[in-house]
Formats: sequence, C-alpha cells, structure tokens
Amino acid sequence: MFTNDYLCGNINHIIKKGNFMKYEKDGELSYTLGAFPTMEMLMNKSEVCTKIYIQDKLQITDSIDKILDLCAKKNIKIETNTKFINRISNKENCYIMGEFKKFNSEIKKGNQIVLVNPSDMGNVGTILRTALGFGFNNIIIIKPATDVFNPKVIRASMGAIFSLNIEFFENFEDYCEKYAKIKKFLFMLDGNTYLQNIEIDNKDKALIFGNEATGLDANLKKYGQTVFIKHNNKIDSLNLAISTAIAIYEFAKHN
Amino acid sequence: MFTNDYLCGNINHIIKKGNFMKYEKDGELSYTLGAFPTMEMLMNKSEVCTKIYIQDKLQITDSIDKILDLCAKKNIKIETNTKFINRISNKENCYIMGEFKKFNSEIKKGNQIVLVNPSDMGNVGTILRTALGFGFNNIIIIKPATDVFNPKVIRASMGAIFSLNIEFFENFEDYCEKYAKIKKFLFMLDGNTYLQNIEIDNKDKALIFGNEATGLDANLKKYGQTVFIKHNNKIDSLNLAISTAIAIYEFAKHN
Repeated sequence: MFTNDYLCGNINHIIKKGNFMKYEKDGELSYTLGAFPTMEMLMNKSEVCTKIYIQDKLQITDSIDKILDLCAKKNIKIETNTKFINRISNKENCYIMGEFKKFNSEIKKGNQIVLVNPSDMGNVGTILRTALGFGFNNIIIIKPATDVFNPKVIRASMGAIFSLNIEFFENFEDYCEKYAKIKKFLFMLDGNTYLQNIEIDNKDKALIFGNEATGLDANLKKYGQTVFIKHNNKIDSLNLAISTAIAIYEFAKHN
Repeated sequence: MFTNDYLCGNINHIIKKGNFMKYEKDGELSYTLGAFPTMEMLMNKSEVCTKIYIQDKLQITDSIDKILDLCAKKNIKIETNTKFINRISNKENCYIMGEFKKFNSEIKKGNQIVLVNPSDMGNVGTILRTALGFGFNNIIIIKPATDVFNPKVIRASMGAIFSLNIEFFENFEDYCEKYAKIKKFLFMLDGNTYLQNIEIDNKDKALIFGNEATGLDANLKKYGQTVFIKHNNKIDSLNLAISTAIAIYEFAKHN
C-alpha cells in the first residue's frame, strides 16, 4: 500500500545541491523512465538502484503500487521531484523514474552478441530486448560506441539491460584476446556464407555486427566466419537491429 | 552538371502563398528528407514527384549532382527554399528535399505484409525497408494507422516506400473480403504454431501483424493460421519491426 511515508524528498534541497541537473554520459548514474523499466530494474538488479523519483501528482496504478512496495522491502528511498523527472525525461509524460549506478557485468559462459561501434541508441535498446528474449544474455560492446546507459537506451530496451551481462572493450583486438576460443560469426554484406546455410551446433558462439553506417571492417574477417543475411540489392543493407534479430532467431533455434 | 538554371524558385513568393507551411497528415503532399530517399523516389516513382527543394547553400556532392541531373531529364522543377526545408525537416541538417503526391498502389500477385493498426512511424519505416529487401513488395495497412506518408516514415524506410505497392483498408474484414483466397498467417503471442515449425510452400501468402501495444485481436484467429515466434518470457513481446523481419526472413527462404 502507498502511504505518505514514501514521500521523504524535498525538491528545493535537490535543486540547490545541483549535483545532478541532467544526465551525463560520463557520470556514474543513469535513470529508468516510467514504470516498466523501473520495475525491471527492481526485480532483476535492485542492487544498482539508488533512488526512485515520483511526480508530485502520481496516480497510483497497480504497477506503481508494486514498485513502491518493492522499494519499501528493499529499503530504497523514494523522492518527489517533478522538475528533475521532467528534465531527465524531456517531459514525456514520465511519472516515475528510477536512479541507478551504471554497472559492468562479467560475461559468463554462453552465446555472445558483439556490437562493434554501434551508434544509434534505439538500435542498441532494441537489440538488448531481442537478445534477452532469445536467451542471448551476454552483450559485448566495442568502443567507441553510443552511450549504452543513456535513459533512451534503457527505455528502448524495455529494461532488458538489467537482465543481461554487458562487457565493454576499448577495441576489437582486446575482445578477441580475452575471448579467443569462442566461435565467431562476423555479419558482413560480403560475407562468405548465407546465414540460412550455416551449420549451427550448440557450442557457445559470438554473433558480431558492425556500425550502422560502416559495417565491420574487412580487416576483421580473419577472426571468424563471415556471414551474409541474404537479401536483394533493392536496399543498401538491413537495419542493424533487424540484422541482429534475424541472426539471433536463426541461431536460437539450435539452442 | 549543376548550373544556376536549376535555381528557379523564390523563397518570398513561396512564403507569401502560405499554402504549405507544414506537413499535414490529411494533405495531398509529402516530402523526402535528404538525398537518399529523394533519389529513391526519382529512380523508382518519379511520376509522383512534384518538385525538389534545395538549401541556399547546397554543397554539390555526387548524389546531389545525380538528383539534379535526373530532375533536368524528367523536367522536375527545383526551388531554393531553406526556410521551408527547415520547417518540414525540423532543421535536422537536411539540404535537399523532394515533394511528392501521396499515392495508392494496386496490389498485384505476390506475398503480402499486413499491418493492422500500426502506430509507430519508425517501426513502419523499418518494416517497409525490410520487406523490400526480401522481395515482399505488397504492403497492406489496416486503419486506423499511423501516417505512412509522414516524412519520418519515408526517411525510416530509406525511400523503400517508392518501390512497394501499398494498399489501405478501413478494417480487417474489408481486406479479407478482397483477398479471401490468400493463405493468411496471423502472428500472435498465443499463436498455435512456432514460426520455425511451419511448413512453408511457395504459394502467395499474407503475414499479418497487430498493433505494437495490443497485438492482433483474438477474433481474427478464424481468418488463418496463428503463429508464435518462439521466445522466452523474460520479455513481454518482441518489437513489431523485429517480429515482422524475423517472419519475412523465415518465409523468404522458401521463395
């Protein structure tokens, strides 16, 4: 049940401190916008949650009630701060927002999705959601890359990011050094094999995708098997999130 | 080659007329933002193009040069109108813009993608691009639906819309009446058959998808075979553009 005991914040206090006026890529904190990703965080990775913000005039729906209950159980502070929510969310009708510490996860065994220099936040969020849905729980990001912890990515992922392991590398060579043995499939427009013709076993594998505009560098071909998702030449290429999803679907059949 | 002969417009004249201050969903005209979709229009459906707009300070790249050449050959007027381009494109660094009459296409034989009440412009644009890439050239839109001719959709489709046949219906029953015989596959979270287990022949078929938030209504199950793209329950559902792409990929294998 919701009571006023939850409402322990003070907007003037927060603004005066001036320590989180806006989201920062290089900062330690990020935010979940809305009930759905906030709930995903609390259910799957509550240890990273530092606070929940709510609007002054929050309507208590079932999902909001659940979130507030979870906060009480996990001793997470709730603060009313409409201005701060509006600033972070760009006033997109966001009534509840979670704050969390950005995290690194250790990749365990299992299949990997490797995104080399992804630049579009919507694509990355969608890829995270798709990967989780098909049980590809290990995500590797090769920098430079878009800010995976940006609230826009968190929202596009529908909170999937809190159920995935995400590891960052400064370059592709460092990644290959650490994960030398995993079988690597490199998705390229001039890939040698059609995806649909690959013989897929149930060993761990890495599906590797390049930047939206430039794809994977030809120099990377030596690291694995190159793959092309067969399509006609009426389009330049498939969208990155689409390519990744099709590949994940095809490989997930064999798990 | 580009010469000043192309520059036959007059910005003051245009603004005074006041007849196309902004894009309108119910209007007759829409716009291609940037060189890529503008070229796609001129190459594949130039008969709908009414004019090309360019910025005052347009840099003549190869693709711009090609567009201007095509306009000369096809007798399409070019007008300098930076303000109008900025208004339509929301100032997103758009240097060239095509204007075209919205069109209806007659669906010929072949596979169909049927989108029932799609609401997200980015999704629809991405679906059009994917469909074209796999040779699914017939698109059916069941209203109410997002504005398929909005410049945002045109851009997200990378101009694919100009190579596709698109037909609109007021409701699903009207669609089924006109296309009674085509084999219909309805994608639903409680679909009876996994996509990967469907026996696919090479007859024409319709792949049917519901709204992003609500999916297909259970009442539609009687019209065809229901299909589920197998994923785990860690996500609510796949993104609409992702589901559509996976389905198109799987069916396109058998064409």
